[in-house]
Amino acid sequence: MKMFIDCDPGVDDSVAILFALNRPEVEIVGISTSTGNVSAVQGAENTLRILKLAGMEGKIPVCAGAEKPLVGEVDGFPDFIHGKNGMGDVELPAAEQKAVDMDVCDFMYQKACEYEGELVLVSLGRMTNLANTLAKYPDYAKKIKRVVSMGGTIYSHGNVSPVVEANIGGDPEAADIAMMADWDMTLVGLDVTLKTHLTRSDVDKLLRCCLPEKKEMVSFISEELKYYMDGSRRQNYTMEYSPLHDPLAMVVAVDPSVVNTRKMVTRVECGGTWCRGKVVVDLREQPIEGRFVEHALEVDSRKALNILFAAFQN
Amino acid sequence: MKMFIDCDPGVDDSVAILFALNRPEVEIVGISTSTGNVSAVQGAENTLRILKLAGMEGKIPVCAGAEKPLVGEVDGFPDFIHGKNGMGDVELPAAEQKAVDMDVCDFMYQKACEYEGELVLVSLGRMTNLANTLAKYPDYAKKIKRVVSMGGTIYSHGNVSPVVEANIGGDPEAADIAMMADWDMTLVGLDVTLKTHLTRSDVDKLLRCCLPEKKEMVSFISEELKYYMDGSRRQNYTMEYSPLHDPLAMVVAVDPSVVNTRKMVTRVECGGTWCRGKVVVDLREQPIEGRFVEHALEVDSRKALNILFAAFQN
Amino acid sequence: MKMFIDCDPGVDDSVAILFALNRPEVEIVGISTSTGNVSAVQGAENTLRILKLAGMEGKIPVCAGAEKPLVGEVDGFPDFIHGKNGMGDVELPAAEQKAVDMDVCDFMYQKACEYEGELVLVSLGRMTNLANTLAKYPDYAKKIKRVVSMGGTIYSHGNVSPVVEANIGGDPEAADIAMMADWDMTLVGLDVTLKTHLTRSDVDKLLRCCLPEKKEMVSFISEELKYYMDGSRRQNYTMEYSPLHDPLAMVVAVDPSVVNTRKMVTRVECGGTWCRGKVVVDLREQPIEGRFVEHALEVDSRKALNILFAAFQN
Amino acid sequence: MKMFIDCDPGVDDSVAILFALNRPEVEIVGISTSTGNVSAVQGAENTLRILKLAGMEGKIPVCAGAEKPLVGEVDGFPDFIHGKNGMGDVELPAAEQKAVDMDVCDFMYQKACEYEGELVLVSLGRMTNLANTLAKYPDYAKKIKRVVSMGGTIYSHGNVSPVVEANIGGDPEAADIAMMADWDMTLVGLDVTLKTHLTRSDVDKLLRCCLPEKKEMVSFISEELKYYMDGSRRQNYTMEYSPLHDPLAMVVAVDPSVVNTRKMVTRVECGGTWCRGKVVVDLREQPIEGRFVEHALEVDSRKALNILFAAFQN
Repeated sequence: MKMFIDCDPGVDDSVAILFALNRPEVEIVGISTSTGNVSAVQGAENTLRILKLAGMEGKIPVCAGAEKPLVGEVDGFPDFIHGKNGMGDVELPAAEQKAVDMDVCDFMYQKACEYEGELVLVSLGRMTNLANTLAKYPDYAKKIKRVVSMGGTIYSHGNVSPVVEANIGGDPEAADIAMMADWDMTLVGLDVTLKTHLTRSDVDKLLRCCLPEKKEMVSFISEELKYYMDGSRRQNYTMEYSPLHDPLAMVVAVDPSVVNTRKMVTRVECGGTWCRGKVVVDLREQPIEGRFVEHALEVDSRKALNILFAAFQN
Repeated sequence: MKMFIDCDPGVDDSVAILFALNRPEVEIVGISTSTGNVSAVQGAENTLRILKLAGMEGKIPVCAGAEKPLVGEVDGFPDFIHGKNGMGDVELPAAEQKAVDMDVCDFMYQKACEYEGELVLVSLGRMTNLANTLAKYPDYAKKIKRVVSMGGTIYSHGNVSPVVEANIGGDPEAADIAMMADWDMTLVGLDVTLKTHLTRSDVDKLLRCCLPEKKEMVSFISEELKYYMDGSRRQNYTMEYSPLHDPLAMVVAVDPSVVNTRKMVTRVECGGTWCRGKVVVDLREQPIEGRFVEHALEVDSRKALNILFAAFQN
Repeated sequence: MKMFIDCDPGVDDSVAILFALNRPEVEIVGISTSTGNVSAVQGAENTLRILKLAGMEGKIPVCAGAEKPLVGEVDGFPDFIHGKNGMGDVELPAAEQKAVDMDVCDFMYQKACEYEGELVLVSLGRMTNLANTLAKYPDYAKKIKRVVSMGGTIYSHGNVSPVVEANIGGDPEAADIAMMADWDMTLVGLDVTLKTHLTRSDVDKLLRCCLPEKKEMVSFISEELKYYMDGSRRQNYTMEYSPLHDPLAMVVAVDPSVVNTRKMVTRVECGGTWCRGKVVVDLREQPIEGRFVEHALEVDSRKALNILFAAFQN
Repeated sequence: MKMFIDCDPGVDDSVAILFALNRPEVEIVGISTSTGNVSAVQGAENTLRILKLAGMEGKIPVCAGAEKPLVGEVDGFPDFIHGKNGMGDVELPAAEQKAVDMDVCDFMYQKACEYEGELVLVSLGRMTNLANTLAKYPDYAKKIKRVVSMGGTIYSHGNVSPVVEANIGGDPEAADIAMMADWDMTLVGLDVTLKTHLTRSDVDKLLRCCLPEKKEMVSFISEELKYYMDGSRRQNYTMEYSPLHDPLAMVVAVDPSVVNTRKMVTRVECGGTWCRGKVVVDLREQPIEGRFVEHALEVDSRKALNILFAAFQN
């Protein structure tokens, strides 16, 4: 499976990337970043260090993208959950590989052309880069095989407002453009990620069960998750566990059998006090204009977690 | 049970009122109307004719209220479902009773004072009159025993937008004020009304089973529902049935055991494209400021319908 | 939120009280005790020690109430689960504060008058004190805002008989009087408390995650729960966990969104071999005379537990 | 299948008997009656007329049994639902066959001995005859293959009290004896019978679909059900339908695949105001003394009804 990842690492992004790097059938052909959990530049830097940690330095091009959403400005980063550096303030050794010096839209389009019809686009952050590329290259959507995105909430509550999830809420206009594009998109949102609990206990088990050559990666994951779980605890009252956001989307990208889904006519609300960024699905008999987006609604959490951890075992 | 009804009759409002009039333990002490299914004045006129039909002419004061929502203007009426006259274009004989000539806020407040602490306020339309009365008389809420309102949608779809129900969507600012007032409010919304099917077949059974002295009322209900079900069919693809909106709220007012509920921190979104009028509940561990409003989430439909019909039998 | 607590501490009562003391929005204005898990006098003594532990010595008046149910005598205490002293035989330092020397009915009524219309009455034991106060002061019910009570079982099994829960079974006549009073009562019974598992593992996590200044309280909770969980294990075959009774009722009192409820016509059976103390709800179309009491039927256990633990964290 | 029926016809009893008579694999070897819907003598008379209607006159012995419950007296009959004659006041031609002139216990025991180990005992009324026979012949239970009884309510409401079903409530002491006997007993109670709706519409379909030679029986059923459904309507607000009580138990006797069951330790409460006659099941880890009785908890209603009707078709 040829995969392109757009992300904002981010503790849970980094776990998702490391999982993908350790799945034999996945070939990551490029990684782009946008502002979100950290700045796009910081996210690219983090990505390069993660690749080095995984022994993949120099093998996958990385490109820093949008530093701002389509509308408005960035108003700070969620340090309390991702740390100042976006990796729970764990310091990985710097890599020698540098980010490619390209416009991110050109980078994304180039990869889409190179692997035309083959590329699974995994979107783990805001959809700003996707929207910009769709604007610059109207045929971008047609070149992508399918999109799996961590984002949104339909029946569950939100995390940046009562009804809005952070990736969509961080750039609603971009998300609406991406959802209206002519490609197959699956949204893995809070309906399933909040029900999938990543526990300290499971991470400790993984430390004991992982392959020796993967121990360093697992140790890094274990360390950065301490910060992350503590932030989750203070925000969401979760003791020694956290929801599984980006890694669950990545698991779905490689094994969609862990979720039940429904395709629904979908738009993104861009106005309002609490609803700016809300994913609006229309199940009425005569719905609004919109495209059918596939939403994950139920999850086999235990299976998803086991698949995630298994990538680091033999 | 002392009851005050605020409504906008409206086919389903009229069924709800006739049900209440035929429940022995219910004493209706006043009825106010606002714009909604029809104009407030037309709604008052319809109410007077319904009272006459039920043999209650002159016994319950009726007052026409707000002709406009708090913000914006009225843009037409849903003729396709309620008919031009609001009663499925069935013409009931005119009553001699006239609507009281009072400001609706004074009327509502007067009744609340007269039956202080006793009054169940059943709200079947927009909450404009409620909001205006709360503004004019800040202690209005404390005088009301509890409020049961047909409105909103939490997990189900909407009926005037993908996520918005008509009564709340028709005056979001008023609904937000009413929900933030210091009283016990139960919302009976589309989560339960869409699951409760009023069928032609059941109405025909009622025509056969009803008491002779109630036959005229049932015949009227049967006639106006022909128009209403046909509108529902064209809008929602329902053949010879319709959802049960206002009457279900009225059934809940007299017998709350037909629904399961959850109290949730609640606000009303007043902005946005599709979300203006959306009922926003916050189930996060650290919710926004808001009051706990009780939402009906599940319903014993068969029992609710049977209770509705039984009022016209022996 | 002004709160009055009537209880019989009792291990789980003490956890509930400590939770309430650590919720910033809760102001406890008085605590009364009745016989139940221990004698009323012992319960008052325990309460005073708990207040001292929480640094609240002298700030909340405590009053010992009924030592006997309305009918019959006390036949021993459940030592096997609460220990001889009612706190799992953990010895807390004695307080200098003394219980107020008043008739408990006068005490409860006085507080209800002082905070008229504001008081949330949380009832964690038998309803003997409530019934006696209602008898002595017929307008007591009207002065209370709402009642949340741990008690009863509708669809689940009982714990003192196949179909009877201990608080109701301990004084059925009192419970029937309290349920027939004219106030809003929510029963949090075994239908939800048996599904909410308080685990040793979670308590250990709390010991690691709690604030330093709250460590002493959490250590006490941890210690007394050892005894309590062991009793639960011997009675109910639960290894290293127990149901969450009184603390769940307290969580519902501060955040009702953790449960789904149904209001049902309710009485308490006072006769029979296995049914004395059974909560009888009547869902028939033509029910018996009785008042609508709200019963918690479903629970978001994980959220409820997280809210409970969060009071001791930051 | 050799079957013995103990009943109190009764409209629904008569439907159940006619169904059994039309199932080829069922061989009814005797029918006894007790007081319940009508007197035992009237029930025997009705049974004889039903046998004649089915062309079985003289082929199955019928015996009138207990006219009183073990404790207390008969206080009238439910005319409003079964009619004065127990068959909805439909007059069937009298039979020439007479009831056997025997003590019902001797009759029941004789049949049990004659078909030792083979007999399915279908109990459609109070268990008075069963209890008396068990008392007179202690080895009666061992001679019976299994018992299927219409009776009780576990999670549903009752019909003679909020929590008590009529057959058990009509003779609680007898029911407790029968449930403590050493045989396999399945209770088909209101949990499933209230969910199985016998509709006028289905009966009309059966009139159109039945075999010509069975038309007379179906016409009788159709006629007596008019009275029965009208009584149900007045009591339970059911328009042109009724719950399916006795016939469902009979369907379960011949095809148990229509229900899901649970075996639970069971006793019958014999005291109390609302609970006298309540079936008490104990699901606690350490239950009371009692025997495991099998209770039907879920039903495939459509299948059960189709099986019932099919006996009258080809």
